[in-house]
Amino acid sequence: MRNPKAPIGVFDSGVGGLTVLTALKKALPQEDFLYFGDTARVPYGSKPLSVVRRFAWEIAGFLLREGVKAIVVACNTASSAALPDLAEDLSVPVFGVLEPAAQVAQGYRKVGLIGTQATVGSRAYERYVDLSWAKACPLFVPLVEEGLWDDPVALLIARHYLEEAPEDLEALILGCTHYPYLKRTIAQVLPGVKLIDSAEATAGRVAEALAAEGLLNPEGRGQVVHYVTGDPESYRALAERLGVRVEALRRVSLEEL
Amino acid sequence: MRNPKAPIGVFDSGVGGLTVLTALKKALPQEDFLYFGDTARVPYGSKPLSVVRRFAWEIAGFLLREGVKAIVVACNTASSAALPDLAEDLSVPVFGVLEPAAQVAQGYRKVGLIGTQATVGSRAYERYVDLSWAKACPLFVPLVEEGLWDDPVALLIARHYLEEAPEDLEALILGCTHYPYLKRTIAQVLPGVKLIDSAEATAGRVAEALAAEGLLNPEGRGQVVHYVTGDPESYRALAERLGVRVEALRRVSLEEL
Repeated sequence: MRNPKAPIGVFDSGVGGLTVLTALKKALPQEDFLYFGDTARVPYGSKPLSVVRRFAWEIAGFLLREGVKAIVVACNTASSAALPDLAEDLSVPVFGVLEPAAQVAQGYRKVGLIGTQATVGSRAYERYVDLSWAKACPLFVPLVEEGLWDDPVALLIARHYLEEAPEDLEALILGCTHYPYLKRTIAQVLPGVKLIDSAEATAGRVAEALAAEGLLNPEGRGQVVHYVTGDPESYRALAERLGVRVEALRRVSLEEL
Repeated sequence: MRNPKAPIGVFDSGVGGLTVLTALKKALPQEDFLYFGDTARVPYGSKPLSVVRRFAWEIAGFLLREGVKAIVVACNTASSAALPDLAEDLSVPVFGVLEPAAQVAQGYRKVGLIGTQATVGSRAYERYVDLSWAKACPLFVPLVEEGLWDDPVALLIARHYLEEAPEDLEALILGCTHYPYLKRTIAQVLPGVKLIDSAEATAGRVAEALAAEGLLNPEGRGQVVHYVTGDPESYRALAERLGVRVEALRRVSLEEL
């Protein structure tokens, strides 16, 4: 398993983790990636944590069988549900998205969190940072998965969720990897609030750790193979609208997990 | 299988089919029911029809093993995907929700349809009625499943989807069993348009057919057992907010299907 030339596995419930993948590719241009989008079972955020934990283990097992050298859980709900266990019990390095985002947030006095119901309800962020406000935004994931992030309805929904945020909020953690696609909209509703997304912070953490463990790929070419459990063509269309070109794409049936 | 005392199986992706269950209980107070909500896999409407067809067959098989005497597919997406095949290939009577709603719509000149992407895209309604306008409303199901139907955001989203409806529309088919929970909101946006929901029409059709086939229960007591694939307590809370009291409730794992 400790093969530096192996790809890095990255997974999310759907297209949200592509924000993390994009940051990883930028930080680690010589790495190859397997991106796994569990589009047949999106959304995760309204499901019980025990169910999401099972999904995370299934997908981690699949990625390990595909030979990855490290796993990035590019989904806040799955990170809340399955970490730190997954990191302790697997033989490859496992990275979640909560701690890197929380670490950035520690530099601000009054910090808020938005996320799925599961993530907010798990209180997993509170392990790393004190929160002044937290709000579940259950419609944000369907909004992005339906490709409506630039639609006027996105602004209406964002206003609805965010209107009750404290006026003196300094920073807001975008506690779901889908939310960065709504960043411009959220900034319109909360001007002056620092929006923290976990993508860059996580990518930096992964780069450091792989270097420290001697796992950097000396000869990768930045290739990405996408695996999805739902309809491949809908995924390709949506990813490309999000600015991610999908070359290699494979449908994985849930029975293979 | 032809046991009049057996319950009627009713299924949907989530809580939407409860609109049909309520109408069935009213039309057939002496019948017992099994209601199956596939809450672990909701929503259906953004999934490929082939996937939804497989879900419908799995659930129909489960309901038959539980001994139902008839099956009501209380979900427009599943009806679009799996009917008429399911009705032709099973040994018990199978009822969908499209034809009854379409039949009511035939009494109007200019008819529109709202539904999930899968239902609208399948063009299944066009088998039964001419449509002047059709619109997929992908956020309506998450809105209801998240319990937000009475929330101001519902009105904003409804305005967004419905603002381009033709001014001279006479009737609008609520082509998804979740949508009747948004009826008041939709009526606010489209005053004067007849809103057609399939619940009552379907219940009438089921009552007639069971009578004709000698399958009416002479001694049932209107009992309902609810089966869900997702979290039972979230389901109970949501169903009760929708006015459906849940007494008997069982979690079914997807492996049992």
